[in-house]
Amino acid sequence: MEQHVRVGLLGCGTVGEAFAELLVERSPAIESVTGISLELARIAVRDPGRPRSSKLDPELFTGNTDDVVKAEDIDIVVELIGGTKPVGELVMAALKAGKPVVTANKELVGSAGPELFAAAEQAGVDFFFEAAAVAAVPILRPLRESLLAEDVTRVAGIVNGTTNYILTRMMADGLGFGEVLAKAQELGLAEPDATADIEGADAASKAAILASLAFNQSVVAHNVTREGITGLEPEDFELAAQFGYVIKLLAVAERFPDGPDGIGSVGAQVFPALVERDHPLATVRDSFNAVFVTTSAAGELMFYGHGAGPRPSASSILGDVVSAADHLRRGTHRRVPVGPPAVMRPTQELVHSYYIRTEVNEAPGVLSEVTGVFGRHGVSIRKVDQQGSESQARVVFITFPATEHALHSALEELRGLGHVRDVGRVLRIYK
Amino acid sequence: MEQHVRVGLLGCGTVGEAFAELLVERSPAIESVTGISLELARIAVRDPGRPRSSKLDPELFTGNTDDVVKAEDIDIVVELIGGTKPVGELVMAALKAGKPVVTANKELVGSAGPELFAAAEQAGVDFFFEAAAVAAVPILRPLRESLLAEDVTRVAGIVNGTTNYILTRMMADGLGFGEVLAKAQELGLAEPDATADIEGADAASKAAILASLAFNQSVVAHNVTREGITGLEPEDFELAAQFGYVIKLLAVAERFPDGPDGIGSVGAQVFPALVERDHPLATVRDSFNAVFVTTSAAGELMFYGHGAGPRPSASSILGDVVSAADHLRRGTHRRVPVGPPAVMRPTQELVHSYYIRTEVNEAPGVLSEVTGVFGRHGVSIRKVDQQGSESQARVVFITFPATEHALHSALEELRGLGHVRDVGRVLRIYK
Repeated sequence: MEQHVRVGLLGCGTVGEAFAELLVERSPAIESVTGISLELARIAVRDPGRPRSSKLDPELFTGNTDDVVKAEDIDIVVELIGGTKPVGELVMAALKAGKPVVTANKELVGSAGPELFAAAEQAGVDFFFEAAAVAAVPILRPLRESLLAEDVTRVAGIVNGTTNYILTRMMADGLGFGEVLAKAQELGLAEPDATADIEGADAASKAAILASLAFNQSVVAHNVTREGITGLEPEDFELAAQFGYVIKLLAVAERFPDGPDGIGSVGAQVFPALVERDHPLATVRDSFNAVFVTTSAAGELMFYGHGAGPRPSASSILGDVVSAADHLRRGTHRRVPVGPPAVMRPTQELVHSYYIRTEVNEAPGVLSEVTGVFGRHGVSIRKVDQQGSESQARVVFITFPATEHALHSALEELRGLGHVRDVGRVLRIYK
Repeated sequence: MEQHVRVGLLGCGTVGEAFAELLVERSPAIESVTGISLELARIAVRDPGRPRSSKLDPELFTGNTDDVVKAEDIDIVVELIGGTKPVGELVMAALKAGKPVVTANKELVGSAGPELFAAAEQAGVDFFFEAAAVAAVPILRPLRESLLAEDVTRVAGIVNGTTNYILTRMMADGLGFGEVLAKAQELGLAEPDATADIEGADAASKAAILASLAFNQSVVAHNVTREGITGLEPEDFELAAQFGYVIKLLAVAERFPDGPDGIGSVGAQVFPALVERDHPLATVRDSFNAVFVTTSAAGELMFYGHGAGPRPSASSILGDVVSAADHLRRGTHRRVPVGPPAVMRPTQELVHSYYIRTEVNEAPGVLSEVTGVFGRHGVSIRKVDQQGSESQARVVFITFPATEHALHSALEELRGLGHVRDVGRVLRIYK
């Protein structure tokens, strides 16, 4: 069954241009395998007069988004402008005009996903966003198709390439955060303003998307509590290594069976964590990303690949476009399982083991006093490692699992003790 | 759109039983998410009177395969008998009766895939076999859907859990092959007759399946040249470690752009290989499996998880059943891209770097003589490591890339040299 499909593109920045070029490059091969001939029909940009890639016909460009979003002769809309305003309205308009939409916009899907899924469903069209999760890594399709029959209990991912590069370099080279960030910016691996990456906001958007599809409950980015990597010091990496760990920024979403109506509650967090050196996630280096999925029957799965970059993102977007085109040809579409809004489990009730680095004045009885505080708050200590002595003593505690609430109340009391000079760092341990 | 789907099962061994139980267990959750109610309607087995899992109604069992394959009231057939005869005919009969078929039978798909794909296409029904590749790991769906628009150049996988367990133990514990195999058999991680695993036949079937879907060309198991792991000795693992490698049994399928009609030629091999310690495939331990995919735009991707086991396989099979049921409801099916028979590139023309362990009588000029032989056959040496001396010298060579033909002709000449006592081991180096 032959099908000619006209694709309209919104935005032509680095990813948009890479997508446009890849579509032109791959379309003969796609046609020979699938019978679908994809035509890049129009590109809406702010400044249509600006010089563009020589591989793209200047005639394609328009300054009017309606020429893509509402035009009769556009079959599929690809949104690669980014951000939420006014992009959310453009996407909504395209869906309402009955056009399938493919986007790589994690910020938009992470914050306004549920409304867009519902609009797509109402219009009976596809809304695909594989590249919004982990760029080139096919994770959403496996979650919503291959694992649809599964009971997914946890999704834990390294979903931000910039921070993974920084942490890999800090771990390998013993350098400070600022120095490595500057280097990453110089190499183009971090934006000039890297706030969204290093503070975990980007990872939180992706955590929301992954959690929504894994658990079939709507999670949005502001449901995700987050902690970035700006405070980490070389000392933490050294100590982590001594205990057999590496440090990774993780997005972790977990489902608990105890929520109302049997759908369970969801905990979602982004934080720098200690990961055992032998765990598959520990081996994900530099700007690579990976998502580790735990299910009741299939067990543990991991999906690994480039989490950013124009060509990898373009590849994933084009895969979605081919699927949407195939569905158009068959007169069908794939429903995004729009679950009910998730019942979020309060962060204070989430359970982890912790690494706690403290500075104490060594004196007889101090260790007993400190461990006594932990004990009273229900935090059991698994390992203690004291280095230095007298006023220089640094004590690292590794705990057994305890709620964040128990930990924080213990830390609060600890900070009031005369012999505890500083509670320097608390990191969760991924298990 | 509600849909009631009756599933008929062929075979009820360990995987069949796990699948039947999982279907019963998960079907309420599947119905609440998808609106598809799955009913396990009938199970054909050789001996219907044999006692079975208490979770399965004894009324479900029949001794007549026609009650599943040809019955009017069966909507989807799941084949979990295994082997090729008479199973191929049963699957063919089900497809011809217009029933979608889901199977985990790598031997069948790896050898008779092209005919079955064609029969499914002719009948306009789904033929799914995700569990035939790497059990629980969703790899076929990403290959044939997410990466459909991609130019996949190579697929390299650890696709056999038994051999990966054996190699992991030999590497970690320095034990001999026989000892570790016996231990694996004792633990149930290797079959009493492990020939198909340790000789690479199982991996070859999976290589054929992966290559067919990755390159859209039909590759069958007998197109795949293979070498097993039975000859490996503890010394090889020690030497590999010294050079910074681990040893893994890999299934490698590669596409070359030089074939006729622009579709390229395909090389497919199974062999024990040296893999750099830092490569993601090197970190796949014990009975875990992983497939590493190289594409032109997305770059490198890896899919990791359990490659065997009743529950992981059942999870994957059930995912396929839900997809097939969803397609029935929509009156559509997914075509397996039945590519033309692959033009296989002769193994002798495939290029690798090699590790070659030799035993030589050390004497002035011997090294020069040996390297001279390599040079004359076009094999350049990258590293030489000589240990021991006089009649005890062991020399390891690491080569630059060369064809298998060049290597073998060099080795043949080497074996004729008086001072070369033995060419003990040749391993390809995965790059």
